[in-house]
Amino acid sequence: MKQKVVMGLSGGMDSTTLLGFFLEHGYSVECCIFYYGSKHNQWENKAAQDVLDFYKDVGSLVKGRLINISQIMKGFKSNLLLSGGDIPEGHYHAENMRQTVVPSRNLIFASIMAGIAESIGAEKIALGAHQGDHHIYPDCRAEFIKSLDETICLSSDRKVEVICPFLKDDKTSILQYGYAFKIPVPYHLTRTCYKDQAISCGKCGSCQERLSAFSFLGIADPIQYAEAK
Amino acid sequence: MKQKVVMGLSGGMDSTTLLGFFLEHGYSVECCIFYYGSKHNQWENKAAQDVLDFYKDVGSLVKGRLINISQIMKGFKSNLLLSGGDIPEGHYHAENMRQTVVPSRNLIFASIMAGIAESIGAEKIALGAHQGDHHIYPDCRAEFIKSLDETICLSSDRKVEVICPFLKDDKTSILQYGYAFKIPVPYHLTRTCYKDQAISCGKCGSCQERLSAFSFLGIADPIQYAEAK
Repeated sequence: MKQKVVMGLSGGMDSTTLLGFFLEHGYSVECCIFYYGSKHNQWENKAAQDVLDFYKDVGSLVKGRLINISQIMKGFKSNLLLSGGDIPEGHYHAENMRQTVVPSRNLIFASIMAGIAESIGAEKIALGAHQGDHHIYPDCRAEFIKSLDETICLSSDRKVEVICPFLKDDKTSILQYGYAFKIPVPYHLTRTCYKDQAISCGKCGSCQERLSAFSFLGIADPIQYAEAK
Repeated sequence: MKQKVVMGLSGGMDSTTLLGFFLEHGYSVECCIFYYGSKHNQWENKAAQDVLDFYKDVGSLVKGRLINISQIMKGFKSNLLLSGGDIPEGHYHAENMRQTVVPSRNLIFASIMAGIAESIGAEKIALGAHQGDHHIYPDCRAEFIKSLDETICLSSDRKVEVICPFLKDDKTSILQYGYAFKIPVPYHLTRTCYKDQAISCGKCGSCQERLSAFSFLGIADPIQYAEAK
């Protein structure tokens, strides 16, 4: 029987590569697409759905469900949310990017995914956190993921564990994996931008980090940007 | 300035005593009342609201918010939920009570409370888990709470910690605390029963455990039961 995993699919390049990774390794994958009220949520949810449709069309064993937690996170303090201030521009590791931290976000995502995993008999939940996230986002760091794994193991009576295959990788390595899979990852369908606009801005920290990874590999980023790259 | 704490208020005798405990110790308390789709949810939510109103009426520094996560937990496997099988009758520690475990419930509650705490500047979140819960519910055991505390500390960059004042107590001790507070806990407004009925059944494991605690202390339980005690 195939191994089952429950993962968060944001529609960005990291989680889309994660989905490709699990399909490459023969898993059956349950994707959770979260709507939590961020400025870019409607756009990234659309990207996630497009990615899901792509993999379904090529016959992959993947399912998806949209999980709306925007009411729950109303009042949470973060510039990433519709209720917060402006998205900062500049480098992904700049101090002003801390304004985009959403308190408890990955913990809420993971705790819901753990409940789904236990209910459908999946032994793993997975997050797409990577090395580049560590500086700004406390809930993407290795020590958090390790502790989260222990907490979820205990909460589920050791029925569910947390894995994070890209934890030690940077965005460049993730791209390299994605282009090497038997079914190349559909990066043309992904979206990374933090801003509330249909076309990615190319200027926010998140866009900048993505563009650097493509540039480092000498590959043209297949998505459209509002600003010249 | 008063210390702030965010806690889950189910309307049962443990969490109501916990609320009394924090008010006794001079905290300002933010109560989260969760609607997650259990059979007894509408009845326990009403009890929680009554408890909240009681403390507000005597001038306590307490606020409450209802958090509906029933859509998120739809499809979770548990006999405690409206979608699950019958609530077992008998002893609280009996094996068939495992059917009432809701996967990831306390973890989901805690992760949402941690996000609220960070957003309103509270340094603590609290759960009412106690020793009597440990046998059946993995997400009430000391090792889980310890790991959860570490996970939430890391997730919040050490801004929020988890406390569980009754972790080593049984229900009898909790009752003793409650009756000793300056403002005695309004046990007449609480509700502990797992069944979907207005009047507590007196037969499910949860009712039985509560009745034992009152009986041990020689105090009459002030709520009404459908069955003779």
